[in-house]
Amino acid sequence: MNRHFASDNWAGVHPQVLAAVNRAAEGHAPSYGEDPLTVSVTASIRKLLGGGQVFFVFNGTAANVLGLSTLIEPWQSVICSDVAHVNVDECGALERFSGSRLVPIPTTDGKLTPALIEERLTGMGDVHRSQPRAVSITQATEYGTIYSLDEIKAIAELCRRHNLLLHMDGARLANAAASLGVPLADFTLKAGVDVLSFGGTKNGLMGAEAVVFADVDRSRHFGFVRKQGMQLASKTRFLAAQFGALLEDDLWLSSARHANAMAARLHEKVRGIRKVKITQAVQANAVFAIIPHDAIAELRQEFWFYVWNEATGEVRWMTSFDTTEADVDRFATAIQRVVGR
Amino acid sequence: MNRHFASDNWAGVHPQVLAAVNRAAEGHAPSYGEDPLTVSVTASIRKLLGGGQVFFVFNGTAANVLGLSTLIEPWQSVICSDVAHVNVDECGALERFSGSRLVPIPTTDGKLTPALIEERLTGMGDVHRSQPRAVSITQATEYGTIYSLDEIKAIAELCRRHNLLLHMDGARLANAAASLGVPLADFTLKAGVDVLSFGGTKNGLMGAEAVVFADVDRSRHFGFVRKQGMQLASKTRFLAAQFGALLEDDLWLSSARHANAMAARLHEKVRGIRKVKITQAVQANAVFAIIPHDAIAELRQEFWFYVWNEATGEVRWMTSFDTTEADVDRFATAIQRVVGR
Amino acid sequence: MNRHFASDNWAGVHPQVLAAVNRAAEGHAPSYGEDPLTVSVTASIRKLLGGGQVFFVFNGTAANVLGLSTLIEPWQSVICSDVAHVNVDECGALERFSGSRLVPIPTTDGKLTPALIEERLTGMGDVHRSQPRAVSITQATEYGTIYSLDEIKAIAELCRRHNLLLHMDGARLANAAASLGVPLADFTLKAGVDVLSFGGTKNGLMGAEAVVFADVDRSRHFGFVRKQGMQLASKTRFLAAQFGALLEDDLWLSSARHANAMAARLHEKVRGIRKVKITQAVQANAVFAIIPHDAIAELRQEFWFYVWNEATGEVRWMTSFDTTEADVDRFATAIQRVVGR
Amino acid sequence: MNRHFASDNWAGVHPQVLAAVNRAAEGHAPSYGEDPLTVSVTASIRKLLGGGQVFFVFNGTAANVLGLSTLIEPWQSVICSDVAHVNVDECGALERFSGSRLVPIPTTDGKLTPALIEERLTGMGDVHRSQPRAVSITQATEYGTIYSLDEIKAIAELCRRHNLLLHMDGARLANAAASLGVPLADFTLKAGVDVLSFGGTKNGLMGAEAVVFADVDRSRHFGFVRKQGMQLASKTRFLAAQFGALLEDDLWLSSARHANAMAARLHEKVRGIRKVKITQAVQANAVFAIIPHDAIAELRQEFWFYVWNEATGEVRWMTSFDTTEADVDRFATAIQRVVGR
Repeated sequence: MNRHFASDNWAGVHPQVLAAVNRAAEGHAPSYGEDPLTVSVTASIRKLLGGGQVFFVFNGTAANVLGLSTLIEPWQSVICSDVAHVNVDECGALERFSGSRLVPIPTTDGKLTPALIEERLTGMGDVHRSQPRAVSITQATEYGTIYSLDEIKAIAELCRRHNLLLHMDGARLANAAASLGVPLADFTLKAGVDVLSFGGTKNGLMGAEAVVFADVDRSRHFGFVRKQGMQLASKTRFLAAQFGALLEDDLWLSSARHANAMAARLHEKVRGIRKVKITQAVQANAVFAIIPHDAIAELRQEFWFYVWNEATGEVRWMTSFDTTEADVDRFATAIQRVVGR
Repeated sequence: MNRHFASDNWAGVHPQVLAAVNRAAEGHAPSYGEDPLTVSVTASIRKLLGGGQVFFVFNGTAANVLGLSTLIEPWQSVICSDVAHVNVDECGALERFSGSRLVPIPTTDGKLTPALIEERLTGMGDVHRSQPRAVSITQATEYGTIYSLDEIKAIAELCRRHNLLLHMDGARLANAAASLGVPLADFTLKAGVDVLSFGGTKNGLMGAEAVVFADVDRSRHFGFVRKQGMQLASKTRFLAAQFGALLEDDLWLSSARHANAMAARLHEKVRGIRKVKITQAVQANAVFAIIPHDAIAELRQEFWFYVWNEATGEVRWMTSFDTTEADVDRFATAIQRVVGR
Repeated sequence: MNRHFASDNWAGVHPQVLAAVNRAAEGHAPSYGEDPLTVSVTASIRKLLGGGQVFFVFNGTAANVLGLSTLIEPWQSVICSDVAHVNVDECGALERFSGSRLVPIPTTDGKLTPALIEERLTGMGDVHRSQPRAVSITQATEYGTIYSLDEIKAIAELCRRHNLLLHMDGARLANAAASLGVPLADFTLKAGVDVLSFGGTKNGLMGAEAVVFADVDRSRHFGFVRKQGMQLASKTRFLAAQFGALLEDDLWLSSARHANAMAARLHEKVRGIRKVKITQAVQANAVFAIIPHDAIAELRQEFWFYVWNEATGEVRWMTSFDTTEADVDRFATAIQRVVGR
Repeated sequence: MNRHFASDNWAGVHPQVLAAVNRAAEGHAPSYGEDPLTVSVTASIRKLLGGGQVFFVFNGTAANVLGLSTLIEPWQSVICSDVAHVNVDECGALERFSGSRLVPIPTTDGKLTPALIEERLTGMGDVHRSQPRAVSITQATEYGTIYSLDEIKAIAELCRRHNLLLHMDGARLANAAASLGVPLADFTLKAGVDVLSFGGTKNGLMGAEAVVFADVDRSRHFGFVRKQGMQLASKTRFLAAQFGALLEDDLWLSSARHANAMAARLHEKVRGIRKVKITQAVQANAVFAIIPHDAIAELRQEFWFYVWNEATGEVRWMTSFDTTEADVDRFATAIQRVVGR
């Protein structure tokens, strides 16, 4: 099948990851997380992040929901952006599993700010109101934009001041690291993130995500939460093997850098087209643009991508670890041809 | 690592399954179940089972919980055996996700009977009581015993009479089929099972289970239940690839037959030992036995296995697709040596 | 204690209601809803509303949450206004009990419109999205405004067209009826409301609300929902007695008319004051106004009322069945004195 | 209506309680628990119990479920007797609200023992198992039997040793106090009970129960739990008024003593009848007996009571604060006549 610009989860598996899975397949190993591979890979992630406690789950929805559910009580709430994956793309999983609620805040670029958050801190202590207890930010955001280190620290500082906990949905964490050019630890645990969803699936894994708690004590019961949340794999070695490969020789970073570079290349090639209106800063592996409605169908005959906003004709073009320069160039040429100049 | 007798989920991945995963890794494919592989493999499963609607999930707990949750309302209950996996090994996942409750019935061999079930059908229509709405049976049971075709039909008939739905936890469904020697469809959907957890992980997959609904109409909303239940994989092709390999040339059946044969061989070799008291009929891939407490630790130095009942010294020895005759013989020899004659 | 303008739930019990409770107190009666009084009063409510099925619960939060939970699945959502009681004043009770979520829409007067609702009907059929399944409107609204009969019918029509169910939070339903001057049935069940929270507590009861389902079939399991929801009273005759008194000689209507008239009188007396800015149409038993911040504290020394919006200085003045003309006049005089001219 | 022996919740309201409700009905009072009456009555209950934190709810199911839900996490469980109200008469309310589960233990007299509890403390720390975290005992039990002070202390001691919390369902707590002849505090908070459901409805109230936490810190969030649990009354003064009357001049105790004495009188009069087999010690306000099946229908034509066990013909005869000696004598005479000698 052709390589598309639909989503980084349309991509397959990185060969090095596949090789690791193949290596792990032989012989017997203890199940439910007690195998040596799981032990060693979680240790590697801890090292990469400068501490914390690490758990594997199957997918990003679970990473977000189980991580957040561990932080909050059912009568508390989670502040997030209105385009947050946990708000719009998880079918109410957080509400059902935790009994709590989300407080989505409209944003233009998917990024919360201390001021936006502070506005929602009303009714504190009033039993009639869900009590804000956590803030969830996505890095890179669903719009492919990036929180700077200072922006994250400012939010973390606000959280500390108001006794809120900070969750980061890092489904595309590697893309953010590649974009920021700072160590992963610096803009996550060290910056004040309490629970991190560390994504792997969108960065060339078959399917594996890690939940990382900054405070080991806060993770004390996560084993039970994960099991009751139906996310404890029996053959955990296969989740660990994928992450192990991702960490080796910083594959996570080189893959993300490549995906980001492909988005930048695409952006570079199409931003001059008159009828292509770029709508978001291109900082990670996505290009958001408004194009004429009739161009969408025609383009999608060859290259699949998602329409983000039916009303405005905004579309999302995503690149992944396996997108090639030739792919981008062919796609850009098609856009140029179809959307015109 | 040595091959143990701990659990069929300590085994790795069957080479044919691994080959299929490798084949699926290349190129782009639509996510969330719309890829061609998922479409074709679910069709194959439907064919094998003579109909129904098929969905993949990550693990057995999810297959049970999401399948059952689709059948029942929160004010209803599920009748099961006291050793049912959903009752003792899923950390209350069903209660949390569905809001309903289980009604566990003590059994000696893990098998429910119409009479045992009927006893619990009290308080029907009384708003103070959780209303029994489903029965969950495990095939093969957690004790490695098997429901005969007639036994299943009798339970299904009782269910129809009392407006109950029938769930089958088939984490080891293939082992049951190998043991019964009848087509899979005959003792599942055709026998009156409404929802089936079709296990793959314990039969040589990396990690994949299928939920199969007999009545397509009853499965209508399962897509939402699965997504809200955090069990929708993005790269579904990798779950499908595993099951595809399992179905090809009836690998599911030959693997299960082999595992069963290894348990039978082990049983044959140890049942004559005076201090080994076999406690359950050996019908699938497990041998349950009571052995002297001090023998347990010594045996486990070389071969790991689980103690089922600390009080009595009952242990569980499980075989898997990759257990060899030599493994069994070495283990039997060790038992003979340690437990004595 | 002085009579305040805080809330209609600061008022006590109407003497006729109290008399009915006293009459009901003697002797034995079947519990859990099978007493003759409960049977006859629910029949009276059915008659008043032109049909339906009627159940008593203890309070308004329960009426809303249990009524809505009966309509929807956990993976569905309820569209409501951003000031809806179920959204801001019930501490996430709906989310916890039902596992579903709310979709609050910003409004200026607490009233939804077909256009506002229709905008949110996106992602239908997409498993990643909570599926809108019900609309909840409040009549009278939390702002004391009233949906006209035509406005309700237009929303109901939209609901039918999109397969949505319509819930009406009628905590102040009687005030709406008094304001509209049309029979209760006409703007509830006959207008297309599927489930109605029929409030009593804010209209002179001690504490009792009714949940009314238009479609008896849809109410079939409500007995279980109510019991599991901890809202089945054992001595139901005392809830029924209160509602019985409310229905006799249309006490519900005369009490509401009086409360509305007192709000109108207050409005009339203060709307000319320069620094009193009336913010909402005065259609039921509330007056919303912005007054200078420093006037609030001074006024509250004698008459308690709530600040609706700390930022703007918007306050809410509520009247109740027992507010007298003299109360209003004294309060209006105080406002005039404190806020000045 | 005749006075029956069906349940103490078939009785009406004690005249002193009714008088208090009437007194509370006049004028305005702050809602949601901030009225002076609620403040003073909760203080009186604290005094009676020697400390703790007190909250009112509407009914016994809510008292049990909200109290227990405050103690436990969803992945934990509550050990109780198989006839516990929370297990058999609350339609799975605890499971739905808390997401946790019950571990019911078969008993003959409704009473747990340290040995029975200890047997269930298996799998501690194993993520696959719901973790026992609380024990719930009912005092007086559903069988009308009573835990002695020593029995409670022994269970409390076991709880402390195993890090379990102790809940007491005191729907008939006053009857237990009357039976034991020791101060209420001694066999509740002072004996090691962590959370108490202090029943009022079955002892002559219209409908009110109190939840009492021994440890104020543990009750810190109960206000939110109660609100989210739909059990915060707006006009709390009416719940408080009922309890206030119950406490005045120890009405709770005299009413319970009377009810107990009536059960004892009934027991005395029927225990000699050959075909009446008393099945439980008569220690509170219930008599359990097996009588011939055909006698049941005939007796119920005049005096209603419940069949506890259809199979054996075991029935429950309950007395209440308003049962008179004449009622008992007429009933005993009827039993004698119908069941024969």
